[in-house]
Amino acid sequence: MQTQFFLPTRWFFGENAFTAHADTLAPLGGRCLILTGKHSAARSGALTDATDALTRLGIAFDVFDGIGANPLLSACHAAGAAARACGAHFILGIGGGSVLDAAKAVAIYAANPTLAPFDIYLRVYDAPPLPVALIGTTAGTGSEVTGVSVLTNDETGRKKSISGPDCYAAVSFCDPRYTASMPRGITVSTALDAFAHAVEGYFTKTCDGVHLLFAQRAIPLLYQGLCALAACGDVPEALREPLYDGAIHAGLVINACGTGFPHPLGYVLTEHYGIPHGMACAAFFPAFLARCRQFAPEKAAAFFEMTDEPDAVVATIRSLTALPGVRFSPAEAAAYAARWKDAIPKNFTASPGGLTQEEAAEILADVGRG
Amino acid sequence: MQTQFFLPTRWFFGENAFTAHADTLAPLGGRCLILTGKHSAARSGALTDATDALTRLGIAFDVFDGIGANPLLSACHAAGAAARACGAHFILGIGGGSVLDAAKAVAIYAANPTLAPFDIYLRVYDAPPLPVALIGTTAGTGSEVTGVSVLTNDETGRKKSISGPDCYAAVSFCDPRYTASMPRGITVSTALDAFAHAVEGYFTKTCDGVHLLFAQRAIPLLYQGLCALAACGDVPEALREPLYDGAIHAGLVINACGTGFPHPLGYVLTEHYGIPHGMACAAFFPAFLARCRQFAPEKAAAFFEMTDEPDAVVATIRSLTALPGVRFSPAEAAAYAARWKDAIPKNFTASPGGLTQEEAAEILADVGRG
Repeated sequence: MQTQFFLPTRWFFGENAFTAHADTLAPLGGRCLILTGKHSAARSGALTDATDALTRLGIAFDVFDGIGANPLLSACHAAGAAARACGAHFILGIGGGSVLDAAKAVAIYAANPTLAPFDIYLRVYDAPPLPVALIGTTAGTGSEVTGVSVLTNDETGRKKSISGPDCYAAVSFCDPRYTASMPRGITVSTALDAFAHAVEGYFTKTCDGVHLLFAQRAIPLLYQGLCALAACGDVPEALREPLYDGAIHAGLVINACGTGFPHPLGYVLTEHYGIPHGMACAAFFPAFLARCRQFAPEKAAAFFEMTDEPDAVVATIRSLTALPGVRFSPAEAAAYAARWKDAIPKNFTASPGGLTQEEAAEILADVGRG
Repeated sequence: MQTQFFLPTRWFFGENAFTAHADTLAPLGGRCLILTGKHSAARSGALTDATDALTRLGIAFDVFDGIGANPLLSACHAAGAAARACGAHFILGIGGGSVLDAAKAVAIYAANPTLAPFDIYLRVYDAPPLPVALIGTTAGTGSEVTGVSVLTNDETGRKKSISGPDCYAAVSFCDPRYTASMPRGITVSTALDAFAHAVEGYFTKTCDGVHLLFAQRAIPLLYQGLCALAACGDVPEALREPLYDGAIHAGLVINACGTGFPHPLGYVLTEHYGIPHGMACAAFFPAFLARCRQFAPEKAAAFFEMTDEPDAVVATIRSLTALPGVRFSPAEAAAYAARWKDAIPKNFTASPGGLTQEEAAEILADVGRG
């Protein structure tokens, strides 16, 4: 066994994870920019808890609430300028995956005034990013514990991630109570995203040692959560903690192991049809699990031991995955797959059996027809 | 569930963990002090691998080989002066737990010339410690992945730990091959130490979330390893990796959860009789496990599920624990227990049922009579 581990983020999980440990913000500086989307930070109660804590700690703050879903480079760049304008010493991101990912980019832009929006992908700049603190309000992304930020290029509409030691939060707070105000649709999509992280990461060759442990914890927690969501129209309150617990462990898995082909293929569904990220990845799970059974039969057997019979797993995922109008023509599928012509993404090679550009086109053309 | 996680160390585990990842030393600086004991660094082959890698990387080095078992404050202080004299930018500790723990203290002394030996316990000094890199040669301590350093006061002979964010290595390398040259006696004692970490940490109330996962991995690996050691007079080569794997996961457990009463009581056996640390802790396992069964019956049941019947576990530990001449009189036991008069250590309160000074004296008076 060969394994390695790196996670410089201090993270807290559980009820009152933020309110009980807000003092850990104090060393980050005396002034911060709070970064949010439009709704969840306030609706969850996290924003009020944060401003109360900052006031108590004597930390001044401004709020930038202009981060949307699938955060745009331009929005992150503007927030970076806002952070500089208010003299922020650190960025406090409060929200779901989009806001948390954005916070990492904002911290880089804030510290590097001459960095143009797209140039963040060059991964070369002078000043280290501002420290980042994160408060999660969805159970899905795992961004709280990863060194990854997925951003969307304004011009092409394409999602692309940055990652590295400069993309870790200094401190993250994961209080399941803040996820309780998430509507059912977002709860389902983010749970599917977390499940995709756990499963795609689990099936990579590098998933061993501690990361295998994380996957073995995340997979049953999330699968049981998905089954419970499939069984009732509401979101039982008791589900919030295990879903978030599973999502964080799934984040620990992908942070070391990365994801498989459902993720880059899912990006296409999000770009083309606006399908939410988690659901977009889940759309490719039937194809992914079929290849796992074919090319990694032992690992697949252990996976279905942790979940259910293959048909039942696929049925559960399908029952939660709405793909209205999704239907690529073979020509459209081939055109999308052409983006992987020059460089097969590591998500493809990390998937059992690998995946060629042609196979990706076939899978794209097949999605929505099941 | 409430949990928190902090581990700023990048660590590598597996065959060639150091040789394949030695480049991660380069950012630490252009000159280092290699810290070793008398034998294991050279005998394991790690020292040669290290000097080869440093030479290749253009990192100059001096060697300080004056660290003994249960490292003395004075030796660490002297090594700190040696590090300053050679202009070291970082400390590279190569050895077992004593050397790895010492490296953390040396890094503090090196950066703070006016810090007197004993004053390291005050935990107040001006300059941050030099970065520390560690190469382990025993499977026991877990120091590779903890923010703890256990030091021995020259004047009193007492062991006392320091811990905190300044006691983490920047990078650690855990190659089981380097543990292969350990004689059987050290292998047994260090495996008992690792087992003590896993078990004592498991039985603390804070062992939940990821730390429970770590304990659940460490306990069966180490118990099966101890059974294999009990069954044969040699150390099968195939045992090296699971023992080190278990020891690292046990380190992750104690780093978050701490240890129970066998550790401070074990220190007394080491001070008074020179019993090696792991064996000294294991001497109190029959008493510890009896209290776990009494005060934490559910957790104890799960523990024996992971290992064996209670009598068999105790028999295995006893068969590996040599306590020649250990026999405290009631007066001696009471005198030692008096050290806990003013402040009951958290290791006592963290143990199922807690432990009073009087109970500690009884357990001390009973050890060696089983």
